[in-house]
Amino acid sequence: MMAKKRRDDDLPIAALLAPDILALLQEAPDEVAAETEEMHPADLADVAEAIPRDQVVALLNALGAERAADVLEYLDEELRSDVLETMTTRQAAQLVTEMTPDDRAYALDELEEEVADEILSALPPEQQRETEQMLAYEEDSAGRLMTTEFVSVPSSQRVEDALASVRAIARIGRKEAMYTIYSTDDAGRVNGVMSLRELLAAPDGAAVSDVAWSEVVTVTVHAGREEIVERTSKYDLVAVPVVDENMRLVGVVTVDDVIDIVQEDATEDVQKLGGMEALDDPYIDTGFFTLLRKRASWLTILFIGEMFTAVAMGRFEGEIQRAAVLALFVPLIISSGGNSGSQATSLLIRALALREVRLRDWWRVAMRELPSGLLLGALLGLIGFARIELWQAIGASDYGTGHILLAMTVAISLIGVVTFGTLVGAMLPFMLKRVGLDPASASAPLVATLVDVTGLVIYFTVALLMLRGTYL
Amino acid sequence: MMAKKRRDDDLPIAALLAPDILALLQEAPDEVAAETEEMHPADLADVAEAIPRDQVVALLNALGAERAADVLEYLDEELRSDVLETMTTRQAAQLVTEMTPDDRAYALDELEEEVADEILSALPPEQQRETEQMLAYEEDSAGRLMTTEFVSVPSSQRVEDALASVRAIARIGRKEAMYTIYSTDDAGRVNGVMSLRELLAAPDGAAVSDVAWSEVVTVTVHAGREEIVERTSKYDLVAVPVVDENMRLVGVVTVDDVIDIVQEDATEDVQKLGGMEALDDPYIDTGFFTLLRKRASWLTILFIGEMFTAVAMGRFEGEIQRAAVLALFVPLIISSGGNSGSQATSLLIRALALREVRLRDWWRVAMRELPSGLLLGALLGLIGFARIELWQAIGASDYGTGHILLAMTVAISLIGVVTFGTLVGAMLPFMLKRVGLDPASASAPLVATLVDVTGLVIYFTVALLMLRGTYL
Repeated sequence: MMAKKRRDDDLPIAALLAPDILALLQEAPDEVAAETEEMHPADLADVAEAIPRDQVVALLNALGAERAADVLEYLDEELRSDVLETMTTRQAAQLVTEMTPDDRAYALDELEEEVADEILSALPPEQQRETEQMLAYEEDSAGRLMTTEFVSVPSSQRVEDALASVRAIARIGRKEAMYTIYSTDDAGRVNGVMSLRELLAAPDGAAVSDVAWSEVVTVTVHAGREEIVERTSKYDLVAVPVVDENMRLVGVVTVDDVIDIVQEDATEDVQKLGGMEALDDPYIDTGFFTLLRKRASWLTILFIGEMFTAVAMGRFEGEIQRAAVLALFVPLIISSGGNSGSQATSLLIRALALREVRLRDWWRVAMRELPSGLLLGALLGLIGFARIELWQAIGASDYGTGHILLAMTVAISLIGVVTFGTLVGAMLPFMLKRVGLDPASASAPLVATLVDVTGLVIYFTVALLMLRGTYL
Repeated sequence: MMAKKRRDDDLPIAALLAPDILALLQEAPDEVAAETEEMHPADLADVAEAIPRDQVVALLNALGAERAADVLEYLDEELRSDVLETMTTRQAAQLVTEMTPDDRAYALDELEEEVADEILSALPPEQQRETEQMLAYEEDSAGRLMTTEFVSVPSSQRVEDALASVRAIARIGRKEAMYTIYSTDDAGRVNGVMSLRELLAAPDGAAVSDVAWSEVVTVTVHAGREEIVERTSKYDLVAVPVVDENMRLVGVVTVDDVIDIVQEDATEDVQKLGGMEALDDPYIDTGFFTLLRKRASWLTILFIGEMFTAVAMGRFEGEIQRAAVLALFVPLIISSGGNSGSQATSLLIRALALREVRLRDWWRVAMRELPSGLLLGALLGLIGFARIELWQAIGASDYGTGHILLAMTVAISLIGVVTFGTLVGAMLPFMLKRVGLDPASASAPLVATLVDVTGLVIYFTVALLMLRGTYL
């Protein structure tokens, strides 16, 4: 991303409107719905977030159930839970009924279990059954993320009949996207897909099966987030159809949810790579102590891991006593190992996340990273050697008569440490994935910590071998 | 992301089909088009990537121009450029003509300028003008990313007439999404938006202006990637309309491109955070030496920055000589500063990228990170103090009679270093953004390097004050 001109400090439109809407809400609540009719629900959600909490329920009431449900879908999770928990069960159920099935399941899942159960049992039986079924799928699976509102037509139908039923469904006022239409066989198994455009363009009289594409990209209800994202992005889909074990179409994951997933996962990856537990909410909305806890846990683990550096250096205390000059290069050498490891780990985390690289590619990656590490180490070693010799030559430092041996010690250590760091950084994501953990947990600080101890051992061992008889 | 069961090692379907298609291509090229008719162009692109390079042009020829253009849109950039540069100008122009305007501009932009100009001048005049106009916008701006194929209808039109023209456009076989339909006034300014569903659901006889929403979310042709992403994700759009200075609709950025942008930006952020230049291509497709260069540049810069640690420690060489024990805690203390800085920087990079936090919030963030840093430093300081005292008590180490003073030195230094690291890590992304650079360049290794030198100075200064008369 390059620098670019942007109105960075523009306030969201909703923040400007909030005072007006609040005033109207208090003076003429009956007019609020009409006055805000043309506003996007996302903007109304911003307004709800900007006004005092005790006015939010009044605002939602003033909007009417259908519109309020739209706003609820865009509302900050915490505020939404707050609102639903403050309302009477009947009020809440009325709103939740109007939400799309995926957002409904998601909203209920966020509530206290008791409240959620009460609202759930106040829903119409059909919706209750549907929502319970969705909540039964594992979190973050396609079954949980999908909406059950999609359009399918029998593949034997004629185009004009299919179009008529699509228009009829559109008129019921379902909110979910219906840009993609699926065709099914008699057993309800998906056997074709077409865009609404393709259906519109098809000549009257043709059968749906003539128009639909027979190769349908699907995921199962158990598919995970990465697979959903990969399918959507590879095939440029606006909705990914979700099928059960019998290839029966049970729902679709819409592209707006996929974008949210991609964004959330990227944020998680970055936070984990930074060496902390991923946050559930935006940084600015996360409480001070929650944030502190998420950081303190990893910071403590890393600190305890890093304590081994004191142990490792303790074993060479005698050498440091004899040649304090050795200590001067400790930060330089171990940080180079950490930096090269951090590069490798960030490369592999993304490559694994985007499925460019699979688990089985680990050996290929290792055989590529090994020469990389050696070359990068040689480069830094050369610079390090030159630096010591230059300082010695111009008299900026006096490393004593053995300065060439010292410079060689630093250079050789750098090759070893950078190679080791690169390999650890590249392999750690694979190892984590292999044991079922998230590769993104291979954070830059974790790699650095792992490499620091070994880096010290490499450095002092090289020093012992090279400097015996001169410095040591 | 939690661990989940996944067929990680499944081969893409295309890799399995490639040998069959290759055989067919050599034996009966006329049948290739019919045999692959139902395949998704993305899968055919995978096939093209799996077969020998010299067969790719033959495959595209066998598919016919329209279908080949679809495949070209999904092809790996490098291979696409290769293919277009090998073809005759006429052949290439024929393919490029069939591409969507945004992909056409993108593909030409990737080619050698000379070849691109030749192909461009062989395009039909209308397309040539359109493509040149798009290429005139800054890279990564909405003007460059948009497609000019969208559907707009006069707001004064009746629903049934609008629908008829939509069906007519659909029949021409334009490829881009037409899920969202825009209404315009007489001057071509956008004044309304509706989904295709809403148009379908509208009663015959109504005017388009009755159906369309009058609040249209738009971006200008100069809008950057972040703004496009933010709009799409906030308003759950499938297409973002792009307007010129006069609010005239000139194109739309479709959601599939937005997903690509989000993925690419996330990958860039992760790679930069890892301390390297972002790659242009997937890790596995990036050449060994390109990869090496992108890593070596930052690694060298960081190494040179880190050299100051040797200078800083050199100033305390006498102290280290007298009390080698001081050196033992150097890696522990400076890495804690780096780790806390890395956490803060990864938090703020994402918060800025998602526009949760703006430039003007820097002071608010600083006032939040300062107490965080102090508390996290105090926590680590406490653990460090306990560690030294415990080791001393059980006899695992002998730090001498002044061990309590030593433990206090380490603890106080940790508070200082972690607080400093946290503040630097949190503020660096703001500073980079302020001067027009990408906040994501505030990599974990960069923060660590900045903090290391200061960390050493803090540590040895505290030591000088605390340990005079005992160790020093």
